[in-house]
Amino acid sequence: MADALRIGIAGLGTVGAALVRILQQRSNELAISCGRKIEITAVSARNRNKDRGIDLSGIAWYDDPLDLAANADIDVYVELVGGANGAAETSVRAALARGLHVVTANKALLARYGVELARIAEKNGALLNYEAAVAGGIPVIKALRESLTGNHFSRVYGIMNGTCNYILSRMEKEGLSFDECLKDAQRLGYAEADPSFDIEGNDTAHKLAIMTTLAFGSEIAADDIYLEGITNISIEDIRAANELGYRIKLLGVAQKTETGIEQRVHPTMVPLDSVIAQVDGVTNAVALESDILGELLMVGPGAGGSATASAVLGDITDIAKSRPGAQQVPVLGRPAHLLEPYRRAQMRSHEGGYFIRLTVADRIGVFANIATRMADNGISLESIVQRSQPDAEPGAPVTIILVTHATMEDSVRKAVSAIRAEGYLVGEPQTIRIERPKTV
Amino acid sequence: MADALRIGIAGLGTVGAALVRILQQRSNELAISCGRKIEITAVSARNRNKDRGIDLSGIAWYDDPLDLAANADIDVYVELVGGANGAAETSVRAALARGLHVVTANKALLARYGVELARIAEKNGALLNYEAAVAGGIPVIKALRESLTGNHFSRVYGIMNGTCNYILSRMEKEGLSFDECLKDAQRLGYAEADPSFDIEGNDTAHKLAIMTTLAFGSEIAADDIYLEGITNISIEDIRAANELGYRIKLLGVAQKTETGIEQRVHPTMVPLDSVIAQVDGVTNAVALESDILGELLMVGPGAGGSATASAVLGDITDIAKSRPGAQQVPVLGRPAHLLEPYRRAQMRSHEGGYFIRLTVADRIGVFANIATRMADNGISLESIVQRSQPDAEPGAPVTIILVTHATMEDSVRKAVSAIRAEGYLVGEPQTIRIERPKTV
Repeated sequence: MADALRIGIAGLGTVGAALVRILQQRSNELAISCGRKIEITAVSARNRNKDRGIDLSGIAWYDDPLDLAANADIDVYVELVGGANGAAETSVRAALARGLHVVTANKALLARYGVELARIAEKNGALLNYEAAVAGGIPVIKALRESLTGNHFSRVYGIMNGTCNYILSRMEKEGLSFDECLKDAQRLGYAEADPSFDIEGNDTAHKLAIMTTLAFGSEIAADDIYLEGITNISIEDIRAANELGYRIKLLGVAQKTETGIEQRVHPTMVPLDSVIAQVDGVTNAVALESDILGELLMVGPGAGGSATASAVLGDITDIAKSRPGAQQVPVLGRPAHLLEPYRRAQMRSHEGGYFIRLTVADRIGVFANIATRMADNGISLESIVQRSQPDAEPGAPVTIILVTHATMEDSVRKAVSAIRAEGYLVGEPQTIRIERPKTV
Repeated sequence: MADALRIGIAGLGTVGAALVRILQQRSNELAISCGRKIEITAVSARNRNKDRGIDLSGIAWYDDPLDLAANADIDVYVELVGGANGAAETSVRAALARGLHVVTANKALLARYGVELARIAEKNGALLNYEAAVAGGIPVIKALRESLTGNHFSRVYGIMNGTCNYILSRMEKEGLSFDECLKDAQRLGYAEADPSFDIEGNDTAHKLAIMTTLAFGSEIAADDIYLEGITNISIEDIRAANELGYRIKLLGVAQKTETGIEQRVHPTMVPLDSVIAQVDGVTNAVALESDILGELLMVGPGAGGSATASAVLGDITDIAKSRPGAQQVPVLGRPAHLLEPYRRAQMRSHEGGYFIRLTVADRIGVFANIATRMADNGISLESIVQRSQPDAEPGAPVTIILVTHATMEDSVRKAVSAIRAEGYLVGEPQTIRIERPKTV
């Protein structure tokens, strides 16, 4: 049997503690699968005296992750500190500079510094594995970086934030408001005290940016993503979507178009009978569309200590099965210096179907006027539904819902703005993009 | 850049020809991803003069795959000949014995000789990759063998035969009979002229046997699988399933129980609102349930020249990215000599829900008698439905459908046999097992 693989783990929160426990309890079977032992040689965390229910005897303790990364006698540095900057960043840089392999679950770090870190890793013959950074336990990095090598991608998309999917699922199933569901999500630990990073789409955007680079070979452009969160999705939207055969999901979508790459995170209507529409609660799903394989959809846990630990463990065992320095999977699918500049497609040029919900004053001619404004902008309608509340007073506002055939975002914006100018709108119009899976 | 990886391809049917085309057309980008060129050095097929729309100039031609495997100047032997014996078997053995890496899409070969071939590969420091052998383009081998290393599995299952899924989907959607759908499947090329290997479940069994070994670390036992095909599924079963909230799929299921491992292929009722129930037509789906990750479901193309070629290409590029002999992923997840003997759990001990459809003479007391026979055998019922045809003559046979809570197969067999002895059954009773995904 080869020499043991010596690993150092920085960060002993839920994921780190779970990882230590698994590596210790399954030490023998892991050695059988990997052809060598995996030894935890060093750890680092904030509080040395905290009881984490794990045995750290015989393992070198470092107060500072950077100190561990720079000096510990290890082959692999496992970064579970978190955050785009600070100790996570400096320690990963230090480890790669020494030629250590690095395993991280840190999407924020990769979204910001991924290309630079890839260059450092490649220069020093180090591997940088980050399966847990995108969609938690779903092996999407492996699929993109290994299984689908040689494929040309047309679109990659997914439900990549469990908090948002939990909220939208509960709103639909129980008819609760956004605020009620958010509170429950916080109570259950699915949402942070400050939930904005999740519900505004930033978390999904980080993950999407990494997938985009792997799929399209462009540099990571996490700050160049069209973002729309789920805070203004109402129970009325969800019900109207259902009636028209759709379900609302927060998707991150990256798509190749003639003018560049679209990266967008927004509430999306998906057909009710599509596979992805069935993905409920905190579960994540990622779809990859490519020309040789076709469509691949993967569904699984997107977060949680155990699922994340499983992905980190897979990254570690991949290194253990290779001989140090032997395997050459490029960090971002191709060598970092060969990534192409990111060319952003304009959202105004986005083509697709749209759901538009308008609340209007109940006046003669409004319905006809809306239809005319749509036609003026070359928009063809799949369906148009006018609804009054059954118990509404005469003259009360009326809801009109339009579903368009594929059209251009610019046309929809112009049509809505023309309708707004007519003066009969009550409240804000709601526009939700429709996304259709190719076949599944 | 490292030396080119020289590959020899035996078998130039749909998959082989697609592979040659992709390797030639995407030669430069593959070299970028892999850090070295992939060169087709040798090929073998039956007919040298057939026009396959690919350029074979400059590539050594072998009439005999065995000759290619034994003598060509290559690093990797790609076996696309097919069949469990004959040229496929002898050529793979010869290649591995020389220490060549082997890539194959041949499930029949692996189901029969997988353990032996793994031993030869490991003895000679060769890799044996076979992603395309199970569920075509879905990267299930990579997930089991790499991503989920260290996980303990409780159950793996899936829709792994596109022909059966196509037939069942069409029967449900269009109300057609089994025979009509089979004919269409044959016309569209989804089913063979002799479809028995697909519709009787043998093809699914081969794939399941490989998954079982990877999940549970037991020797391959492809001949030790409980088999039930879809030929006796009627449109009535499908309709009754729908009404009760289920859909019928042919699943292969491997499950760890107290008495051993269940391997079974049979028509299965899955809940209508589960993700796997939405997988229609020739698409495949594989679910992996394990203790650290949780549940992972992957959906994608299970067959077809292009999807299969994508999986084969992924296997080749994995080798190209490693240095020869450097990577040590054990062929079957752990070294072949450490696989455990397969211990078969008895189907009689299988626990689960059951759908039972009985056609009975319309006599007083029959309904009560059926309920009593179920109770006698300790079977608790989730639902029991009696139906007459709306236009039935008085006294015409009546259909009774029972759905049981979790019970033991033995009890169901005894109850059905007791009911049969009562003499009021018209025609054969139908029994279909229910399978519930854990959460997705």
